[in-house]
Amino acid sequence: MATASTTPAALAEQHRTTLDAAVAAIHGRHFYTPYPESPSPKVYGQEAAPTGQAAFEGYLGADFPLDQPGTSDRIATERSPYGIKLDVRYPRTDTESLLAAARDALPSWRDAGPDGRAGVCLEILRRLNERSFEMAHAVQHTSGQAFVMAFQAGGTHAQDRGLEAVAYGYDMITSYAGTVRWEKPQRKGDPLVMDKRFRAVGRGTALLIGCNTFPTWNAYPGLFASLVTGNPVIVKPHPGAVLPLAITVAIAREVLAEAGLDPNTVLLATEHPEEKRAADLALRPEVRIVDFTGSTAFGDWLEANARQAFVNTEKAGVNAVVVDSTDAYRGMLDNLAFSLSLFSGQMCTTPQNIFVPRRGVDTDEGHKTPGEVSSDLAEAVSRLLEDPATATGVLGAIANEDILHRLEHAEKLGEAALRPHSVTHPEFADARVRTPAIVNVDAEQRETYARERFGPVSFVITTDDTPDSLRLMRETITAGGALTASVYSTTERVLEAAEQTAMAAGVNLSANLTGQVFVNQSAAFSDYHGTGANPVATASLTDPAYVAGRFSFVQSRRHA
Amino acid sequence: MATASTTPAALAEQHRTTLDAAVAAIHGRHFYTPYPESPSPKVYGQEAAPTGQAAFEGYLGADFPLDQPGTSDRIATERSPYGIKLDVRYPRTDTESLLAAARDALPSWRDAGPDGRAGVCLEILRRLNERSFEMAHAVQHTSGQAFVMAFQAGGTHAQDRGLEAVAYGYDMITSYAGTVRWEKPQRKGDPLVMDKRFRAVGRGTALLIGCNTFPTWNAYPGLFASLVTGNPVIVKPHPGAVLPLAITVAIAREVLAEAGLDPNTVLLATEHPEEKRAADLALRPEVRIVDFTGSTAFGDWLEANARQAFVNTEKAGVNAVVVDSTDAYRGMLDNLAFSLSLFSGQMCTTPQNIFVPRRGVDTDEGHKTPGEVSSDLAEAVSRLLEDPATATGVLGAIANEDILHRLEHAEKLGEAALRPHSVTHPEFADARVRTPAIVNVDAEQRETYARERFGPVSFVITTDDTPDSLRLMRETITAGGALTASVYSTTERVLEAAEQTAMAAGVNLSANLTGQVFVNQSAAFSDYHGTGANPVATASLTDPAYVAGRFSFVQSRRHA
Repeated sequence: MATASTTPAALAEQHRTTLDAAVAAIHGRHFYTPYPESPSPKVYGQEAAPTGQAAFEGYLGADFPLDQPGTSDRIATERSPYGIKLDVRYPRTDTESLLAAARDALPSWRDAGPDGRAGVCLEILRRLNERSFEMAHAVQHTSGQAFVMAFQAGGTHAQDRGLEAVAYGYDMITSYAGTVRWEKPQRKGDPLVMDKRFRAVGRGTALLIGCNTFPTWNAYPGLFASLVTGNPVIVKPHPGAVLPLAITVAIAREVLAEAGLDPNTVLLATEHPEEKRAADLALRPEVRIVDFTGSTAFGDWLEANARQAFVNTEKAGVNAVVVDSTDAYRGMLDNLAFSLSLFSGQMCTTPQNIFVPRRGVDTDEGHKTPGEVSSDLAEAVSRLLEDPATATGVLGAIANEDILHRLEHAEKLGEAALRPHSVTHPEFADARVRTPAIVNVDAEQRETYARERFGPVSFVITTDDTPDSLRLMRETITAGGALTASVYSTTERVLEAAEQTAMAAGVNLSANLTGQVFVNQSAAFSDYHGTGANPVATASLTDPAYVAGRFSFVQSRRHA
Repeated sequence: MATASTTPAALAEQHRTTLDAAVAAIHGRHFYTPYPESPSPKVYGQEAAPTGQAAFEGYLGADFPLDQPGTSDRIATERSPYGIKLDVRYPRTDTESLLAAARDALPSWRDAGPDGRAGVCLEILRRLNERSFEMAHAVQHTSGQAFVMAFQAGGTHAQDRGLEAVAYGYDMITSYAGTVRWEKPQRKGDPLVMDKRFRAVGRGTALLIGCNTFPTWNAYPGLFASLVTGNPVIVKPHPGAVLPLAITVAIAREVLAEAGLDPNTVLLATEHPEEKRAADLALRPEVRIVDFTGSTAFGDWLEANARQAFVNTEKAGVNAVVVDSTDAYRGMLDNLAFSLSLFSGQMCTTPQNIFVPRRGVDTDEGHKTPGEVSSDLAEAVSRLLEDPATATGVLGAIANEDILHRLEHAEKLGEAALRPHSVTHPEFADARVRTPAIVNVDAEQRETYARERFGPVSFVITTDDTPDSLRLMRETITAGGALTASVYSTTERVLEAAEQTAMAAGVNLSANLTGQVFVNQSAAFSDYHGTGANPVATASLTDPAYVAGRFSFVQSRRHA
């Protein structure tokens, strides 16, 4: 039951400052976050870390506490890449119950209005933030992310991306008047006067399909964009990464219930690994929105078949780096080495294809051949990962066996510049930790590098010259998609050509990253994650197109 | 060659006030127009009418002046519903030339930026407005609209809708910062500082498929939405209504050339009636946006097959009226009579299905049975159309033979309440003018009224009661789509129920229209035309979703 302080309106008022700041940030593109990314006790308090760890451990080997209609059995499908036993048992709710519950929740959620919905969403995010340590363990042991990364990418940065989506949806609805008295002057006589009302009506039940490696970061934009625009959401986690989204759903249902709203506005749909529940749900006529992160094959299938829905997909891509010249050779190598190593290259934004001209590149440390660039990069990676504690902190663990197999076969793809090896985790003896592979290939071996090799595998590709590199970047991205591209050059003309190429390929570009900003990281409110302009993704997290398709304005009018 | 006053930047400045006012109007939803709808000499000057008529007559029996690359032959495909000989001969440009010219025009149009593009668009609209009389004749003799309606719906109101689309696109791009210096505070040391640039990049070549009855009104939103967001547009008119869009394309090319831009940013694609050029063009991979108004069959085909494109369609629907009760019986009848008669019911917004409860309705003129409502409505139509001059001014002419055949078969569909007859046009002896048909049916005859009978055919449908009427309205619209719905009731509870039904069906609702506002008319900047929430249309003219899919933000960043 709602108390005075937990009604949607009260929540909207409590979070007004944050919401306004977030809306200002999406327009200004400046730095903003209400969710501090440092897992320091100075920020979150002394109790936060042990409380979070205890909460996580409380889930292990137990029934996950979630009350949903139509639930009969329980399933446990997760395995920690760090080798600990999880055995969290989730309810499995049948499809008819899920769809009926979501349908019934729609009118009250719609009628909560944009302010009420935003207030509820921001309260969900506030509680998620409060429980970032618990979430960090959950993300670590399902995705394989290292703890600090899981705290950030799985916790606070994911919360940022969720808030960003709320800001887009809220702003898009409320920046158009909800009511108006319309007066049309007449050449003779009194004006025509009409009272009009405009309401944002959600498209209908949304299906959110989560992924294994970024269970929250890639899910929160779709979840919160659908919610704020008035749609109930059925959350279907990857069977290997259920816990982070189960916690999220539980928090959402708790906030909804306290606000006097229908908790079935957010529902969890777990699955046995082989049952292909996402495909079944996505084709149901009741499902009107689908958000998906994962394989190109299934993403393309969704786009082709879930025709009744507004479908957003993020799929595989071939992220590119064009090396032309640099006045900070060491900075470039260290920056790239970190980008290749972070979370074992299991980021959708990790560079895969590094194009280097055959004649070599000019640097502040002299001229370097493609072979030298490749071996110096390999050395930089090895240097970064020398100490096992640092290495495991950067690399995390390999999320699943598929990625491991791909890595093991990498050296057959060309000339090995860096061979992967195992690293013993200081804390988790059975953790699946590997260093990255770097493979040298020629530009002609396009079939090797023109498709994504998800995981810690990258290619140093010898091209004719920088224009050839840019052409290959454009062609591979236009055909195969990419979330990121980067260029290193000391020549403004080359940087401008790279920018033109990136616009033509529809990919976001980073130039001359040599410090503590990495091409695989994007900052909510400022950086667009994807563009929607190449095959890797249908929209950006978050841009207007990502939000606009989730609702309609429905109008009524009468004489004043 | 561009002179100082015709550059994109200069045009942007010249039209700044109009653009700002249009952006304010889409947000405020208040009345706004810079294009006066009265064809009075006091507004447009004494010379405007004769100049426009002479310009129109100058096209007849002549080669239409349009210079496009790759043009070899000329075709004439139009027939005036008023029976005059047109024989305007248009260039027919081959498909490869069209696509290549559009592709080559994209970069310069993109680089004109949102202000430059908006300036060019507003100058095109200004010149269209200046030539509204010429356009009125062109629209009249292709669509069949009566002259004054053609001046308004084909001229000034279409210009309003074009400007509205420009305002949406311009606002959506420019309300997000184009550049930013991003500074992220660090817990230790200096902040991270990046310079970022965000550019709106058009999706690619747009194909605009025009319709016969509203060649400009239904085309301008898509044309201008695509243009302002950076896309070249290939305009493919209906073969029966080429002239209005040929004039539009010629004006656009003239403004582009004067601005120093590539005139091939806007191209005309004419066709022989049987060649199905729209389908061929829509499947070309180069075509990335499709806007279409017309049949459900072809609209559905486009949505299913033009998968590479952002497809917007407006198709057939079954607009509904629910009559519950009224305290202005005569006003209701007159208002409905005008709505049914205007342009012979050939508006996508004309009501088709009038639901009346079996027990009858309470009115200020006593209780009325469904039969009485139907016969009183028939009488109101007859009264409105008694005088031939008034009748032809309201009815216009029947656009094509298909509609005529449908009308002739209408009385077989049920009990005739009003039989159509021919009207002799005082000015055009061969004009195809008919009065509307009204047919009485029972709610059970759903196969009769649940699909659109495009043209002057409407049904008075006897239902069990008003809740039954609302249920039927909802079901028919959910299945068959609708652009408009209206309700007459003296009971606030019924009006509220109708509003809930309209939200559930995703249709815009007008309540108790009895004066000079008609359900089939929508005012740009304030009224949404469609919602995108039922099968009649994928989006509204114009809402955020209609614009957002036409461009992406592409970003670049580097260390400051």
